[in-house]
Amino acid sequence: MKFESDAAFAVRLDEKDELAQYRAAFHFPDPDLIYLDGNSLGRLTLKSAERLKEVVDREWGEDLIRGWNKGWYEAPSRVGEKIAKLIGAAPQQVIVTDSTSVNLFKLAMAALMLRPGRKNIVSEAFNFPSDLYILQGCIQLMGGDHQLRLVSSQDGVQIEEDSFLDAIDEGTALVTFSHVAFKSGYRYNIEKIAEKAHQMGAMILVDLSHSAGVLPIQLDTWEVDLAVGCTYKYLNGGPGSPAFLYVHKELLQEVQSPIWGWFGQHQPFNFDLEYRPVDDIRRFLVGSPSILYLLGLEPALDLIQSAGIDRISEKSKQLTSYLIHLVQHELEPLGFQLGTPLDPEKRGSHVSLRHPEGYRINRSLIEEMSVIPDFREPDFLRLGLAPLYTSFVDVWQAIERIKTVVMEGRYRMYSKERIEVT
Amino acid sequence: MKFESDAAFAVRLDEKDELAQYRAAFHFPDPDLIYLDGNSLGRLTLKSAERLKEVVDREWGEDLIRGWNKGWYEAPSRVGEKIAKLIGAAPQQVIVTDSTSVNLFKLAMAALMLRPGRKNIVSEAFNFPSDLYILQGCIQLMGGDHQLRLVSSQDGVQIEEDSFLDAIDEGTALVTFSHVAFKSGYRYNIEKIAEKAHQMGAMILVDLSHSAGVLPIQLDTWEVDLAVGCTYKYLNGGPGSPAFLYVHKELLQEVQSPIWGWFGQHQPFNFDLEYRPVDDIRRFLVGSPSILYLLGLEPALDLIQSAGIDRISEKSKQLTSYLIHLVQHELEPLGFQLGTPLDPEKRGSHVSLRHPEGYRINRSLIEEMSVIPDFREPDFLRLGLAPLYTSFVDVWQAIERIKTVVMEGRYRMYSKERIEVT
Repeated sequence: MKFESDAAFAVRLDEKDELAQYRAAFHFPDPDLIYLDGNSLGRLTLKSAERLKEVVDREWGEDLIRGWNKGWYEAPSRVGEKIAKLIGAAPQQVIVTDSTSVNLFKLAMAALMLRPGRKNIVSEAFNFPSDLYILQGCIQLMGGDHQLRLVSSQDGVQIEEDSFLDAIDEGTALVTFSHVAFKSGYRYNIEKIAEKAHQMGAMILVDLSHSAGVLPIQLDTWEVDLAVGCTYKYLNGGPGSPAFLYVHKELLQEVQSPIWGWFGQHQPFNFDLEYRPVDDIRRFLVGSPSILYLLGLEPALDLIQSAGIDRISEKSKQLTSYLIHLVQHELEPLGFQLGTPLDPEKRGSHVSLRHPEGYRINRSLIEEMSVIPDFREPDFLRLGLAPLYTSFVDVWQAIERIKTVVMEGRYRMYSKERIEVT
Repeated sequence: MKFESDAAFAVRLDEKDELAQYRAAFHFPDPDLIYLDGNSLGRLTLKSAERLKEVVDREWGEDLIRGWNKGWYEAPSRVGEKIAKLIGAAPQQVIVTDSTSVNLFKLAMAALMLRPGRKNIVSEAFNFPSDLYILQGCIQLMGGDHQLRLVSSQDGVQIEEDSFLDAIDEGTALVTFSHVAFKSGYRYNIEKIAEKAHQMGAMILVDLSHSAGVLPIQLDTWEVDLAVGCTYKYLNGGPGSPAFLYVHKELLQEVQSPIWGWFGQHQPFNFDLEYRPVDDIRRFLVGSPSILYLLGLEPALDLIQSAGIDRISEKSKQLTSYLIHLVQHELEPLGFQLGTPLDPEKRGSHVSLRHPEGYRINRSLIEEMSVIPDFREPDFLRLGLAPLYTSFVDVWQAIERIKTVVMEGRYRMYSKERIEVT
């Protein structure tokens, strides 16, 4: 599609947008705010807000302990099934529990234990640092003999796919990476990597935090072994909501969690003294599930399901392409560089702009321009586009406001000293 | 105190109760319901309900990602400090994160790694099974050379303290147990066990799930090395709320979590590629904290702090003593046996009754008598007394209703087949 740069064009794009109506399903207390950080913390849906009140007042408040027999106990599996549909997983392979990092720990340890003779882990410098820390911790726990091979990128934006594939060999136990890189938004070809990993006898573990709910994902078809992902980004589960975990059904009998808790036990309420893991994906549960979050998530997931991942990912491509068009025409002359791949098949739903003053520009946008992007060191201004509630006019306006900040030099009143934590 | 058995006496006890007013701070939608399961899931405080709505609508809904810079980021430490005051811990030793089982995993692994030459773990068959499963998993991860020595009880109620102490020797790496046993309510003498453990060079790790917020606990004074505990029982954090974790300040520099996540990283938002744990208790954080639960917990903890652990534990002793008096006079003739120590210093805040028909009696109480205790195999009917909202009249009425169920044989209409999960 050929994009134009004027406001009227953005309005026309919104008029033609089949998903435009979904914006009304979200809480929008400040209509002037352009929120471009749904890739970090998704907006609140009205139905989740309503459901959370009901869960607190009626379920916790009235049902009390009886809630466990009225749907709480099955919540990690039930919510897992809803996520399974969004990531191309047949039933009984997904569960919602713990944090992404804890789940990554469980699955990385499980994979390393299944490949005892192999001592290499292949990942990349683009991976989310917490994922790398987890792997470093696993290596120490396994005795320190493993090597973490980090493939890096020349330009900080694209990975060299061939280098990554070449790093996988017969000594590789595990290949693990983020589907969409958190800084540049680079999107990996999971299928190709899985194929190479399996050729070499390695396992593959993918972090879907930046792609679940917004990109087409076919875990079963791509023959992914293991995956994890976050629910508070494009799945709109709320700050700190629990993460999901996928294990391919053919592996379920052989993988074992390193953390043996009662919710992963066969008949936990028998309170047997010996651990005997349940026969299914629930063996990766540990402690009491986070009921409030799980029940609040359900309507948010239903909303995504009703909009359809195909339409969502198509709109994501339109939004990022349109944004890139505006960046090229309006922002590159002002010193911005695109920090995200131009090929839509190679990016996710956020676009990064690189600018030496990225940090201060970000602060100025938040403090005085009513735009919320986020900033990642050293110079990435990230603009996250959430197709269910980001409009084309939002994108147009955000670019206008970024122009204002730079052309008027407004960012100069902010200190270069990093003050905020996220 | 000498107790009497008539209703008027219960009324007089309530009239003299300094904490009676605190009942009004809780959500009581069904005034007829006698809830005796606060040891499993605490009641909802009105302030937590209100705070949760505010957090959802205003903080998540409006502040969105900015919430992290407005108090979310510090929440695990801030809430940890509130709990520290309830368990006799000086500041900066307690953090709230993950589940009790995950925290136990972290600390048990940390302890075993600090005592590499020692191969015994001492625990007891009274311990919560999830704690035992976690230990069994740690043993496998450590290579399988460790032994789990489980001391058991003759009568299923009291532990033989001497046998427990004798099991700790110079081969012991770790001594770990629940402060209050989940079935019988037996309360361990932590101080004595810590002394013996330290004499032998072992570490001690205590699960405070059934005692935090209701019993006097002095972790620093008792020289406890490590502790964990649940926040959804007597701390009223809601179903699945995150757990707490304590590390004695003198150990903080040497203990290391086996799970290396970004929230435990020194300056996590630098996104460095190498893990370098922060210098304090936050090194036991892993992924994104459960903000909704953490912020909802705060007013519930403030309420406990304002009532005071001394007054709460004194009322707990009164409530359990009064209940035991009634059991002895009213229920023992009906075939019940006390399943909890008579010495108030040796029990927690729940009292277990043993009866061959315990399961069906429990069902009948819940289904038709508006009493909610719970049942633990094989024959424990547990009655949890939460001093902030359980009244003496509640106790009196519960005993009357239990009598009715047994004397009228009402439990016989229920199947012996176990249907409920909790």
